[in-house]
Amino acid sequence: MKAKTPSLNPKPGKMNDMGKALYNDILNGHLASIEKALPQYLPTDDSGVDNTLFEAMEYACAAGGKRLRPVLVLEFCRLCGGDVKSALPFACAVEMIHSYSLVHDDLPCMDDSPLRRGRPSVHAAFGEPLALLAGDALLNRAFEIMLGCKSGLYADKILDAALVLATAAGSLGMVGGQVLDLESECRDISIDTLEKLQLGKTAALLSASCEIGCCVAGADNIKQSAAREYGKQLGCCFQIVDDILDATSTTDELGKPAGKDLSSGKATYVTLLGLEKARTLADRRTEQAINALIVFGDDADGLRSLAYSLLSRNK
Amino acid sequence: MKAKTPSLNPKPGKMNDMGKALYNDILNGHLASIEKALPQYLPTDDSGVDNTLFEAMEYACAAGGKRLRPVLVLEFCRLCGGDVKSALPFACAVEMIHSYSLVHDDLPCMDDSPLRRGRPSVHAAFGEPLALLAGDALLNRAFEIMLGCKSGLYADKILDAALVLATAAGSLGMVGGQVLDLESECRDISIDTLEKLQLGKTAALLSASCEIGCCVAGADNIKQSAAREYGKQLGCCFQIVDDILDATSTTDELGKPAGKDLSSGKATYVTLLGLEKARTLADRRTEQAINALIVFGDDADGLRSLAYSLLSRNK
Repeated sequence: MKAKTPSLNPKPGKMNDMGKALYNDILNGHLASIEKALPQYLPTDDSGVDNTLFEAMEYACAAGGKRLRPVLVLEFCRLCGGDVKSALPFACAVEMIHSYSLVHDDLPCMDDSPLRRGRPSVHAAFGEPLALLAGDALLNRAFEIMLGCKSGLYADKILDAALVLATAAGSLGMVGGQVLDLESECRDISIDTLEKLQLGKTAALLSASCEIGCCVAGADNIKQSAAREYGKQLGCCFQIVDDILDATSTTDELGKPAGKDLSSGKATYVTLLGLEKARTLADRRTEQAINALIVFGDDADGLRSLAYSLLSRNK
Repeated sequence: MKAKTPSLNPKPGKMNDMGKALYNDILNGHLASIEKALPQYLPTDDSGVDNTLFEAMEYACAAGGKRLRPVLVLEFCRLCGGDVKSALPFACAVEMIHSYSLVHDDLPCMDDSPLRRGRPSVHAAFGEPLALLAGDALLNRAFEIMLGCKSGLYADKILDAALVLATAAGSLGMVGGQVLDLESECRDISIDTLEKLQLGKTAALLSASCEIGCCVAGADNIKQSAAREYGKQLGCCFQIVDDILDATSTTDELGKPAGKDLSSGKATYVTLLGLEKARTLADRRTEQAINALIVFGDDADGLRSLAYSLLSRNK
């Protein structure tokens, strides 16, 4: 799949190779900060009685792939003129919430996944009870970090940012989307229900990540709203591309023949819309994401580039 | 079992029947406020697409027994001269955290309990995946409620209270205690480990409930620390009495012969200390709880009475 760059980019050809390299450096800098900070925000226990829980929490957060969500927190904070360091606890909290949701998603009573990113899932490595508790502990830890952060932020900014995350992660956001996902296994769903499901399951946390960066920087409502919209469209596009890749790749990550979602009868963008319409929708979502960035000016080119790279990725 | 009232009460015979009735009215008033507020703080979804999650969350919080933890939040807020209404969101948040922990505790991979308080546990009623997600959603919801509460409190008070709860519920508190509990099924543990286990599993949340009431009222550190101590000792006593009742009752709540903890080989205060020493320890914990209340004066008589009633309860 290839992004139709000329028709999507509102300012085609604007960013030259030097610009791309600059923004790659910025995003990679965020990634490096997160990889360094994340283990430091995980709990430790000096009593020596029990460390298995902490090991399971660390394992769940390690090898985290792109760290897309926390990178968005930091980049929106930077774009809004905030102190990127003061956003780090929030970035790590978002990543912990993402990690907890994967741990619980992989459990035998949910997706029953023995693997996650090419290595044993948490319950496969530590047993089911500890995986359940490590997930719970990561969710709690996210709030501990945010509420206890000593980064010189005013209390009301911390509250705003933490509330955005709690709302996105909860029953009207990510968990709500997961419940719709469960139900979609048992019955036919419409494209509207699939959209609602993915808005909760995938887009809510991405959208919240963008908004949190703005909250920490003390940005105005216009910027917060634009950031939310970018994250939401990015999340929707992300899932459509996932479905397209699942339907078109020859093997999945376990090496089994792909097309698993089609054979399981579970609705995807591809089963409901067909491949071509799904591609068109992914293009449109990317365009909407990029349009939302206008308020941030040229300095948001890194995020424009990011949206394209997610659209044209190969897994 | 009967509390040795004269030797324990630092001011024996102080509270007459009229005083007891007054404090019963106050505590019952708190209970009534909580029963009314709790359903209102649970989420609703007007879209009509899916309500099963909300039903499961409501089910988990309904029939909640004594509501000991939220009553403590409100009573300590009142004792410290705070506005009890402004503590209600925090009281309900504490109860949701307690409820989530019970839902996850009952799951097949944990205690595998088909019943909770005489009716089907959440996974027995709604299935395992939904029970897992309802627990997650309740934990999230607790933070949503606290962080979004519009009760005229300053942001820093809200932060203080929410951080106390996050810390008590997390890996260094309740979840940490549950992990030690899991491990105690597989190996012999010492009385010190059992104490640490119960400090996390039971006492952390009770202690936090007391402290949160003080935080909301803006009480000083001396009162916060005293409240924490009362809750901690109450929690430790609570568990010892539970173990004594399990060992001495003829049947458990499922109607099966009791002494289950002894037969399962899992360590309890009774298996590690024997019945008499366990009773003495429960008495001592109650005494310590009551001693901690001195700073609150006579107005804390309701809490003194509460400590005795927990010590001398029959389940």
